[in-house]
Amino acid sequence: MIRRNAEHVSGASRRSSEQPARVIITEEPRNAETPLHALREALTPARHFFMRNHFQIPYLDPEEWRLRVAGAVARPFVLSLADLRRLPARSVTATLECAGNGRIGFAPAALGEPWGIGGVSTGKWRGVPLSALLERAGLSRETVELVFEGADRGRLADGADVISFVRSLAVEQALDPDTLLAYELNGAALPPDQGGPVRLVVPGWYGMASVKWLLSIDAVEQPFAGYFQAGSYLPDRSDRSGPEPSGRMRVKAIISAPAIGDSVRLGRNRITGVAWSGHSAIARVEVSIGAEGAWQPARLVGVAERHGWQQWEYDWEATLPERYVLRARATDEHGNTQPETPEWNRFGYANNAIQRVVVQAYE
Amino acid sequence: MIRRNAEHVSGASRRSSEQPARVIITEEPRNAETPLHALREALTPARHFFMRNHFQIPYLDPEEWRLRVAGAVARPFVLSLADLRRLPARSVTATLECAGNGRIGFAPAALGEPWGIGGVSTGKWRGVPLSALLERAGLSRETVELVFEGADRGRLADGADVISFVRSLAVEQALDPDTLLAYELNGAALPPDQGGPVRLVVPGWYGMASVKWLLSIDAVEQPFAGYFQAGSYLPDRSDRSGPEPSGRMRVKAIISAPAIGDSVRLGRNRITGVAWSGHSAIARVEVSIGAEGAWQPARLVGVAERHGWQQWEYDWEATLPERYVLRARATDEHGNTQPETPEWNRFGYANNAIQRVVVQAYE
Repeated sequence: MIRRNAEHVSGASRRSSEQPARVIITEEPRNAETPLHALREALTPARHFFMRNHFQIPYLDPEEWRLRVAGAVARPFVLSLADLRRLPARSVTATLECAGNGRIGFAPAALGEPWGIGGVSTGKWRGVPLSALLERAGLSRETVELVFEGADRGRLADGADVISFVRSLAVEQALDPDTLLAYELNGAALPPDQGGPVRLVVPGWYGMASVKWLLSIDAVEQPFAGYFQAGSYLPDRSDRSGPEPSGRMRVKAIISAPAIGDSVRLGRNRITGVAWSGHSAIARVEVSIGAEGAWQPARLVGVAERHGWQQWEYDWEATLPERYVLRARATDEHGNTQPETPEWNRFGYANNAIQRVVVQAYE
Repeated sequence: MIRRNAEHVSGASRRSSEQPARVIITEEPRNAETPLHALREALTPARHFFMRNHFQIPYLDPEEWRLRVAGAVARPFVLSLADLRRLPARSVTATLECAGNGRIGFAPAALGEPWGIGGVSTGKWRGVPLSALLERAGLSRETVELVFEGADRGRLADGADVISFVRSLAVEQALDPDTLLAYELNGAALPPDQGGPVRLVVPGWYGMASVKWLLSIDAVEQPFAGYFQAGSYLPDRSDRSGPEPSGRMRVKAIISAPAIGDSVRLGRNRITGVAWSGHSAIARVEVSIGAEGAWQPARLVGVAERHGWQQWEYDWEATLPERYVLRARATDEHGNTQPETPEWNRFGYANNAIQRVVVQAYE
């Protein structure tokens, strides 16, 4: 009856062919984590990219797809994918983390899908800076936000109405040159299950800002107050008195190896992981061995793009055949670091508490 | 480099011959948990019994062993094991839990050995009620406590002096007919690594009260204030304002199957576990499926002795191939139940917060 979910818990010794693409959190709508083994890579293969859906995944025919840019603009227009591809493009490597990632770390339990650590992935996104389209449209001086509508829609569990996934961004963030209308992920067409043919990508922000299956962009002169803006996804709610008055990702390190419950051999072992922050580059990652262990600097490895995660590693000696508690803590260049305990909030958002991985060392 | 510690994490599908006796927490001194598979049994086999040591395990030759009963008594005496075995004996099934069991559940990390859930075992102890020896000795009217000295001694990490493990009990608890000088565990001679030839067993109390390798009992007319009484093992410290003004075990349920990270098949699955309380019998165990799941009654199974753990089980349907969060909560006949979050204390004692086990269901 019981078998091991090696992909989620470890995956270290399995061949790729045995590994499922993702760890499923909920089946309908489909929410799924990046498996641990894929958190060890600089870029997350598209098939392993985490999926966070509120509704059924819509399929939009790329040939038929149109983007409407309207609202408080001088020159509203409609764009096809071919039109979009003809505009000057750029690539941005960006980590996207679900705002609910790490929710299972909250006690008392927070409401919502039980995300572990794998609700985060890093992709190389290619597309057109949103600013280029907004300049073409000509925002009114009174525009305060841009409103983005996705094609995903449905009934919420507790609601009668069919609603679409709609989010807004302040003008300043919308004009950031790294905010893209992306049509490629890791060099291939953006897959339908990641928001293709075109999605918004807002580097540095929790994933809810990066509206998938983008249908329209509307400039508005009053703050948008739709459900997914004002009735849900309020990482700010717990942050009002805290250091993060935005939807930016809190600084966070995760340990990608070893996995919780793994056994390790006596002697030298390598701890690996990634770290990211929506505020700035990662300045340092530190590792502690043992509940009372001092923090020691980890090596930062690989090339960290401005908005992509930073890979790191740390070698340690398991000197005795006993239990070890491993911890990792990241600090970004703004000096933000991670708390010991999650800052509890009812819906379990923005958990960036220091992760602990307990392993057993064996001879 | 990494292999699976199946015994700790699951063990469900392994043959007994592949399972180590215990999960080692620290090598020197030896501290080790009962492996998960052995938490599924009514009585814990001696080889799987958890071990909590402050110092090297002493070996006392049963032939040479003597117990000195002295202090504020009318008739001090010395007893051999043969003398003890000639006295009227009784058997008590009792669960012993390390006061630090569950310490890894504290955040920020508590100081001390990183115990998971397996610092608990249940044995059938046979021996002589302590009260019989105290009656023979004749306690002075001014006696307030009995002081028990074990043969285990050494230097603490931060101390210069060699000290022995010494603890006291109030007269009332010492006279409880279930408080034993035990020389048998599960029908065999008490093994040296469990305190043999003779240990104190104080049913209902955290394990530190059940002094192993017992050498002497002294009646005292002032409260004892030795290191292991007043400088350590202070579950009371966090309880002063709480419901447990004693060293009694807080009510607690643990899930013995499935294990954290296990995969389960779609369809009917059985959750099993044990529950205990140092205050009274277990009145009920409830199970919740999903972070937001309602509490449903589990079946209490097997025969629960007054001081032994209560086995329980609950059948549930995994209807979708997704992640499930399983929780279990016990309530004792005094109405004590478990908190959602651990009551933090610096040394990480008496964690009886509701356990959560996250599993993945697969087709």
